[in-house]
Amino acid sequence: MSVSVFDDPLLSGLLGDEALARQFTPEVEIAEFNTFEIALARAQAAEGVISAPAAEAITAAADNFAPDMVALRNGVARDGVVVPEYVRQLRQRVGPAHADRLHYGVTSQDLIDTALVRRLASIVVVLDQRIAVVAETLDELTRRFGSRRIMARTRMQDAMPTTVADRIVTWRAPLVRHRERLAQLKPRLLVLQFGGAVGARDKFGAEGQAIARRLAAALGLGDAAAWHSQRDTLAEFAAWLCLVAGSLGKIGVDVALMAQNTVGEVTLADGGGSSAMPHKANPVRAEVLVALARYCAALSSAMFDALVHEQERSGSAWTLEWLTLPQIVIAAGAALNTANALLKSVTRMGGDS
Amino acid sequence: MSVSVFDDPLLSGLLGDEALARQFTPEVEIAEFNTFEIALARAQAAEGVISAPAAEAITAAADNFAPDMVALRNGVARDGVVVPEYVRQLRQRVGPAHADRLHYGVTSQDLIDTALVRRLASIVVVLDQRIAVVAETLDELTRRFGSRRIMARTRMQDAMPTTVADRIVTWRAPLVRHRERLAQLKPRLLVLQFGGAVGARDKFGAEGQAIARRLAAALGLGDAAAWHSQRDTLAEFAAWLCLVAGSLGKIGVDVALMAQNTVGEVTLADGGGSSAMPHKANPVRAEVLVALARYCAALSSAMFDALVHEQERSGSAWTLEWLTLPQIVIAAGAALNTANALLKSVTRMGGDS
Amino acid sequence: MSVSVFDDPLLSGLLGDEALARQFTPEVEIAEFNTFEIALARAQAAEGVISAPAAEAITAAADNFAPDMVALRNGVARDGVVVPEYVRQLRQRVGPAHADRLHYGVTSQDLIDTALVRRLASIVVVLDQRIAVVAETLDELTRRFGSRRIMARTRMQDAMPTTVADRIVTWRAPLVRHRERLAQLKPRLLVLQFGGAVGARDKFGAEGQAIARRLAAALGLGDAAAWHSQRDTLAEFAAWLCLVAGSLGKIGVDVALMAQNTVGEVTLADGGGSSAMPHKANPVRAEVLVALARYCAALSSAMFDALVHEQERSGSAWTLEWLTLPQIVIAAGAALNTANALLKSVTRMGGDS
Amino acid sequence: MSVSVFDDPLLSGLLGDEALARQFTPEVEIAEFNTFEIALARAQAAEGVISAPAAEAITAAADNFAPDMVALRNGVARDGVVVPEYVRQLRQRVGPAHADRLHYGVTSQDLIDTALVRRLASIVVVLDQRIAVVAETLDELTRRFGSRRIMARTRMQDAMPTTVADRIVTWRAPLVRHRERLAQLKPRLLVLQFGGAVGARDKFGAEGQAIARRLAAALGLGDAAAWHSQRDTLAEFAAWLCLVAGSLGKIGVDVALMAQNTVGEVTLADGGGSSAMPHKANPVRAEVLVALARYCAALSSAMFDALVHEQERSGSAWTLEWLTLPQIVIAAGAALNTANALLKSVTRMGGDS
Repeated sequence: MSVSVFDDPLLSGLLGDEALARQFTPEVEIAEFNTFEIALARAQAAEGVISAPAAEAITAAADNFAPDMVALRNGVARDGVVVPEYVRQLRQRVGPAHADRLHYGVTSQDLIDTALVRRLASIVVVLDQRIAVVAETLDELTRRFGSRRIMARTRMQDAMPTTVADRIVTWRAPLVRHRERLAQLKPRLLVLQFGGAVGARDKFGAEGQAIARRLAAALGLGDAAAWHSQRDTLAEFAAWLCLVAGSLGKIGVDVALMAQNTVGEVTLADGGGSSAMPHKANPVRAEVLVALARYCAALSSAMFDALVHEQERSGSAWTLEWLTLPQIVIAAGAALNTANALLKSVTRMGGDS
Repeated sequence: MSVSVFDDPLLSGLLGDEALARQFTPEVEIAEFNTFEIALARAQAAEGVISAPAAEAITAAADNFAPDMVALRNGVARDGVVVPEYVRQLRQRVGPAHADRLHYGVTSQDLIDTALVRRLASIVVVLDQRIAVVAETLDELTRRFGSRRIMARTRMQDAMPTTVADRIVTWRAPLVRHRERLAQLKPRLLVLQFGGAVGARDKFGAEGQAIARRLAAALGLGDAAAWHSQRDTLAEFAAWLCLVAGSLGKIGVDVALMAQNTVGEVTLADGGGSSAMPHKANPVRAEVLVALARYCAALSSAMFDALVHEQERSGSAWTLEWLTLPQIVIAAGAALNTANALLKSVTRMGGDS
Repeated sequence: MSVSVFDDPLLSGLLGDEALARQFTPEVEIAEFNTFEIALARAQAAEGVISAPAAEAITAAADNFAPDMVALRNGVARDGVVVPEYVRQLRQRVGPAHADRLHYGVTSQDLIDTALVRRLASIVVVLDQRIAVVAETLDELTRRFGSRRIMARTRMQDAMPTTVADRIVTWRAPLVRHRERLAQLKPRLLVLQFGGAVGARDKFGAEGQAIARRLAAALGLGDAAAWHSQRDTLAEFAAWLCLVAGSLGKIGVDVALMAQNTVGEVTLADGGGSSAMPHKANPVRAEVLVALARYCAALSSAMFDALVHEQERSGSAWTLEWLTLPQIVIAAGAALNTANALLKSVTRMGGDS
Repeated sequence: MSVSVFDDPLLSGLLGDEALARQFTPEVEIAEFNTFEIALARAQAAEGVISAPAAEAITAAADNFAPDMVALRNGVARDGVVVPEYVRQLRQRVGPAHADRLHYGVTSQDLIDTALVRRLASIVVVLDQRIAVVAETLDELTRRFGSRRIMARTRMQDAMPTTVADRIVTWRAPLVRHRERLAQLKPRLLVLQFGGAVGARDKFGAEGQAIARRLAAALGLGDAAAWHSQRDTLAEFAAWLCLVAGSLGKIGVDVALMAQNTVGEVTLADGGGSSAMPHKANPVRAEVLVALARYCAALSSAMFDALVHEQERSGSAWTLEWLTLPQIVIAAGAALNTANALLKSVTRMGGDS
């Protein structure tokens, strides 16, 4: 089923991002849970909080653990979060001797948030590379067509002649800033979630900080105090994705305007066809960029709304993030791919130079 | 893959709506395409616009036609819309004698929008019934607990004692209005889309109106002039869904507040469990209602944004609807199911009467 | 000061709506408070709930009462709502004999909401008329230019020639539906708010309903049970305003595209000037329509968010409405004026017929 | 008139920010225009682009120039922007000998955007200080009440006892990150806008860059290529403001929940009064924080939407920013003041330690 176009077997070919969407499958999420529980057990064993045999039993049980998905689905419907049922199943596998050492001193949110951040760590690498690729494609267009004439237009009216290079400069400069922003926000975003029941690591005394340090290192994340109810790093990241999608939407609207028949300032190799008018070549990818940008814009408000996260954990605000963030990621990711394909498809820009 | 929680194998158990989500599968959409093409061919044959054998050949070909989905996916990625490739495949099946009579005088948007409206026609029946069911469940709660005392609270402070019945009145009254609104908007929403290339039914002369009338009747929809670039009926429906979700979100926040340990004005049969604190019984469904309401609120802005639909067809504004509307439908549908389940799970409301 | 362009001495000339904005001045709001208190006192006297002399004293005091605005401002800052300080001042004026009969059995929200609805009753008359005027202006354009040729365009590409009349049909049809919608929602919207402390009219027994009926009649509003925490009628109205603004935004984007130099399908009498390029004639009003439509779209989500109105009165959800609704009203009102002025300024549409 | 609560004589006492709102008056904006024109003339004279006497004449004319506001208002309504009429008036004052050297080679957007950025430069200093003040107030609360007990609550249910200090940590940590983010975005935000008609500084050859450098230095801003159609720095700043408001909204909802009668974990010195229930003490400021956070969330989508800024200057996207950004600034500014006042009003937090 496919309520979202990003999951739809047909529309995801136009609007989706298969590579990044894979990160949001249950399989990948559960693999991250397994990784977390193993890393946690080892860190706790290293600090003497659980025994070495317990850590070994947990590692053996969690390695490639594939839970009963139907039971998980029922668990989510009951508990509002998948972790209690996941832990219940995994405890059975660990066996009675060490079951109570599994998931010791942590809470659902530690797993879910850390598993999210781990995947975001992979995702931002991809996104950063894609931005670089779009910038290179723009450079290539400048080399090919930069000196040619187009009309500069302000308020939808002809202003004065300019060059293709001048227009491309305005598309490219924000991309450079986006990479700068990403470099700045990454240390805030890519950090461990590890707080226990109410965020205070209360099951651990002096060892809490040492376990956190080991756990973060094992997971390749930054160490940080628990941020269960502080969602600003996720909202900041969502805003960054909206900036990216918005800048690409600007390219989209410009290309669509340039491709108008009476303007003719760009030719695309592979315009989309029409069922009623076979002669047409529609700037489909340009339109998709506009749609994705405006969609991200709408979703942004849900992420900021979710900052109003009551007390130590808000089920409603947290769930609101789940509804929203993956879609913004995929929309921005798809926009980058689409922008690059659109720009690669340009066979002519501007008139005689 | 499951970028959206509504499509997610695990989270859709908590947040999804399997019954309604089925309407948004490609299979159901294509079945609607087939139905449309058959009904169109018959209406055109009845008006003498195409021959009876052509209509028969089209009917035979389109009946239960199951297109090559991989090719459809590639078609969407190329054309921005699935119809050109669908028609191409179906024309092959119709055969050369009558292929050019298939999809005669219509355009992609006629199929896509009519197929959407047909499914919305089924969906609103379900939603209307669900609202009635929630209202009945509220009546049942009033019968069981209406005379008991709760504290009325304004601005989060105790105001004065009131009864459970008084609180339930404020939950129920909007539901009655929502049904009234739905009855009023349905004649605007549930109408045929039939306009041809640019909305003017230009391939048909005097017969255009007669074909439309037959087509609408065959599809069980209202007749109307083409509304390709007039998207107010869809935005109005989306707003109605947001009203429904919002009213249920109010029930959700009230129940969550009543369920607080220090308040104790409601007991729920099956609170959600915690991985760290087994003693807890979380009002998961109440929180879900709040999350769904706020999510719909965010998405509403995309639907209104998409009213700025340029010229005879805007690829970007139309795509923006595809990104948005199915999710609002499912969010509202899931909220109705969740609200009913939440209210059914109440084992006690209020104190001694 | 002018944080909002709608209040700005300069920008409100472009984006504002002086006629409707007047309804949101404190002076007009306070005049409505006075009217409410007088009507309430008389209704209560007629039902024997307060004495006739009390009603006379209240009427005398409240008639044209102009409170100390500085004290009111301080009162709002303290109480979150202006009414407690307003009532305090007015009680002084009523005098000790009858002061406690003023505002008897009602609460701040009864005044504020009823005063809002009363002004909305005036506003919807104006908006409905304006929509009719825009429709007439469109009819006039059809008479003048309807048979002329323009190019129909889908997905920003030339599709096939059509007429100006065909385009105008798509602008006009939603306006007719908007008037129909307004007629349907008005009975829900334009109703009295009268509930007392927690919405249950608990200070009154059998007389509650009779007072409400008299009060509603005196204020020219529908009678209804208190809707303190049921905000769906306001959100529905806001959504209607967004539909109106969105439909006008579609006219705006179309005109801006038609006015492009290479398209030249419309000539406007008074395009805006540029400080750098005196030769330009910018389609300013068309752009304003797009901006107002998208602004309304963004604000809509706040109105739906505010439906999650906890318990008997939510200070936060109610305040969120105050932040939002007046702006949507003015944006839609300004859009109607702007659309009409834009269309009136058309001196040519389309090419040779 | 006061369509916006931020401009309203009464409600701005509750929701406004007088200190920052002053920056959005026409008077302050025009003073910035004057400053820009003087700095520009001097920079151009220094580079030999205009004569020294021209620069002197411009300086004399623009110094404290107070234009005819009625004519400006009419100019905005006509041109969509105030600058053409401002320049027209100021040219008259400069006199015929040098009038054409005023505003030489620049465009409306250079003035408007630079005047905005200059005011934002002042505003961010204030906001940064206010965040520091709120953090100090939190530290003071920790000193006074940090060791006392409160209940940690997850999903609205009691989880386990914790301390006031643990709760305050979650309020404070995002503030520190917000200051870090501001320091990072400031160099991107606080830059000169100087591009001429279409952003390419085409009136100037080699001198363009030198003039820009001088102008930036004179105005205390960073130097940058023109960013007429690149609005990511403004959207980034708006997102930052939404993060700030959101984090304060979290404090608001927590305090409102702690102040519930049955919870009693906080006492506020000056709760707001009720017109119907004099015994109540409402946590008005806490509710205001929630309302402002959600309002900013809704507005954020308009700022991201406005990134889809077509061609060299989009009248509609630019106007959309004007509608939105000042309100987000004031909402965040007011939220900081309100949060500090709320926290200062705490007379007790938590129970016996």
